[in-house]
Amino acid sequence: MEKEIAELFTELRYKKPLIHQITNFVTMNDCANVTLAAGASPVMASSPCEAGEMAMLSEALVINIGTLQPESFDGMMSAGKAANSKGIPVIFDPVGVGATVYRTNCAMEIIKGIRPAIIRGNASEMNRLIGGQSITKGVDAAYVADSNAEIARTVAAAFNCIAVVSGKEDAVSNGKHTYLIQNGHPMLTRITGTGCMSSALIGCFAALRINLLHSAVAGISLMGIAGELAATSLSDQEGTGTFRVRLLDFISLMNKEMWLEGVRIIEV
Amino acid sequence: MEKEIAELFTELRYKKPLIHQITNFVTMNDCANVTLAAGASPVMASSPCEAGEMAMLSEALVINIGTLQPESFDGMMSAGKAANSKGIPVIFDPVGVGATVYRTNCAMEIIKGIRPAIIRGNASEMNRLIGGQSITKGVDAAYVADSNAEIARTVAAAFNCIAVVSGKEDAVSNGKHTYLIQNGHPMLTRITGTGCMSSALIGCFAALRINLLHSAVAGISLMGIAGELAATSLSDQEGTGTFRVRLLDFISLMNKEMWLEGVRIIEV
Amino acid sequence: MEKEIAELFTELRYKKPLIHQITNFVTMNDCANVTLAAGASPVMASSPCEAGEMAMLSEALVINIGTLQPESFDGMMSAGKAANSKGIPVIFDPVGVGATVYRTNCAMEIIKGIRPAIIRGNASEMNRLIGGQSITKGVDAAYVADSNAEIARTVAAAFNCIAVVSGKEDAVSNGKHTYLIQNGHPMLTRITGTGCMSSALIGCFAALRINLLHSAVAGISLMGIAGELAATSLSDQEGTGTFRVRLLDFISLMNKEMWLEGVRIIEV
Repeated sequence: MEKEIAELFTELRYKKPLIHQITNFVTMNDCANVTLAAGASPVMASSPCEAGEMAMLSEALVINIGTLQPESFDGMMSAGKAANSKGIPVIFDPVGVGATVYRTNCAMEIIKGIRPAIIRGNASEMNRLIGGQSITKGVDAAYVADSNAEIARTVAAAFNCIAVVSGKEDAVSNGKHTYLIQNGHPMLTRITGTGCMSSALIGCFAALRINLLHSAVAGISLMGIAGELAATSLSDQEGTGTFRVRLLDFISLMNKEMWLEGVRIIEV
Repeated sequence: MEKEIAELFTELRYKKPLIHQITNFVTMNDCANVTLAAGASPVMASSPCEAGEMAMLSEALVINIGTLQPESFDGMMSAGKAANSKGIPVIFDPVGVGATVYRTNCAMEIIKGIRPAIIRGNASEMNRLIGGQSITKGVDAAYVADSNAEIARTVAAAFNCIAVVSGKEDAVSNGKHTYLIQNGHPMLTRITGTGCMSSALIGCFAALRINLLHSAVAGISLMGIAGELAATSLSDQEGTGTFRVRLLDFISLMNKEMWLEGVRIIEV
Repeated sequence: MEKEIAELFTELRYKKPLIHQITNFVTMNDCANVTLAAGASPVMASSPCEAGEMAMLSEALVINIGTLQPESFDGMMSAGKAANSKGIPVIFDPVGVGATVYRTNCAMEIIKGIRPAIIRGNASEMNRLIGGQSITKGVDAAYVADSNAEIARTVAAAFNCIAVVSGKEDAVSNGKHTYLIQNGHPMLTRITGTGCMSSALIGCFAALRINLLHSAVAGISLMGIAGELAATSLSDQEGTGTFRVRLLDFISLMNKEMWLEGVRIIEV
């Protein structure tokens, strides 16, 4: 599998697909920059006045509810339905789902109304997605999440999608096959937006429409490997500011050889 | 006092409180990153659909009107009232108050409706807050602000809060005791958001709910000391881009020893 | 001409004009930082509740439709009309015009309702502006754009403005005189916002109200020269993250001597 995934890095820089992102205000500049660094091209049009039309021009759609508002939610639904109608893959990042009733309700509406191809979140967010569904199905008490791999497998099966659970080890599952990506560094939790940026990167690879499972592994592992390289490059006098800069540097420098050398992936 | 304040730096990294920030679109990424760098955790939910609920989950609320809109104003009021009801400290940054009628009216509504625990602004903004109140009391002509310390003392007394006036020397007052923090560097005025970031940092320390006056001093002095360290680290070929990076670096590296070595504080 | 333009760099740092920017959410932090780096002062108030009043306080207005929404569009129209009424120059950046019907309609409404003094876009955006107008005039088929210089000349003549077409070589025209600025570097296309930042910089120089054609050349060439300096400073281990930092560094370090040494401009 690694060799096929590695080819996606070359392919992405060659094809430069357009990635439509309706994302949060906090990290959208970071998401645009990692999209460009990886070789794709970002566009971010959240107004319902144009979100659907813009989605039709794109090769993937990334939806992120980090700073959800009624107007951008309408834009997400409009863009998502347009993407669905044309077979454009939708990547969903349910940021903070579970924190408020509004956010949880919107997240469930997105999943049901748009059918994302890939969902990425941390263990607590992803767990909440299944918990929410389980409650409506009355089986919440039966659900026990004991690992990222287990959560990923359950989310993938529940929503018929690829699920990516970020954490110390990232888990990627299509419900049948589940992989652990053993890359990353604690520094990635000390800057804002590394989750959002991972979802953007997954969107870049998904836009190639070669293999969605591989795209999810490519995107999440790219963040992990670049994070390792950035963290190990730091001197004692450098902190999270320089780390952010080097993270973008290494994403922009990544190629198939560097990726093959850095990636640690196991099937579980 | 310095020794007690220094302990807050250790405490913050240990407790990692959640800081809800309804802030402006220009500097929100910077505010999120300094919050993480200082050891706390940011969340930014401005929609009235969830702002109040999110505030209830947080340990401090920072309100910043840099890019005020009717919808985010409703979110601020909703979050502020929720915070008040639970005794969660509110930090208010009246960015640009006085520039437009809308902004001034909203700022006064926030102060009256929410009762911020801490208000931070530059001399002209803070002065305008008292001027505005003085006008409604018919005593505007009698008001003369001759120093940051005087403005801080007057704002603190007028609104029964801690007041922080940023400038060449930052003044912090609770109306009874007033301190000058003699840290900082002119480079801090050559990048956007250092005021907003200072308010975010004050929010981080206030979230510990140990001593609000100490929290205000800790937050504003952290920005000043990190600014000095960042500026003095620059070579001739480095400008405001590198300064921004190093500023975040030094905030993330700060600890009680570095702070005690760097801080210059006097009571006036 | 070069000597007169070079003086604008000194003048800008001396006068520090206030630049009102109603711009997109993705790159607004970058735009604020380049505005400060060049020596001016940014303010960004997009709500129709205050956008017009804020424009009256400013010395230039920059309008950018990168993340257009009905509310910010109303703010743009309100600010633009206020600026027109006081003779404050308006710089318009028609980001992505042509991509959606909504964006195209709004762009044409801005051009007709506000009469920008300067319009800056890439070749495809600027071409679309004339194509759009040509369609309404029924002469679309007759239009052929063969170079940036030709597009700039046509846009300038069509809208009675200064037109700046960004690209490998940037073209600046007032309809009578047309210049090519042969600065820049491919790395400028690998980070987000260099177009938006160029428009912001043009706004800074336009705020001096000395010579609009010179202001356009100053702003666009500043981005190109800083991009060259930033790109050539990179080591093999540095990528787009470090490039972004150095770009801001060199904008903040630029002075008339550096500009005169770096600029390559020809009349065509």
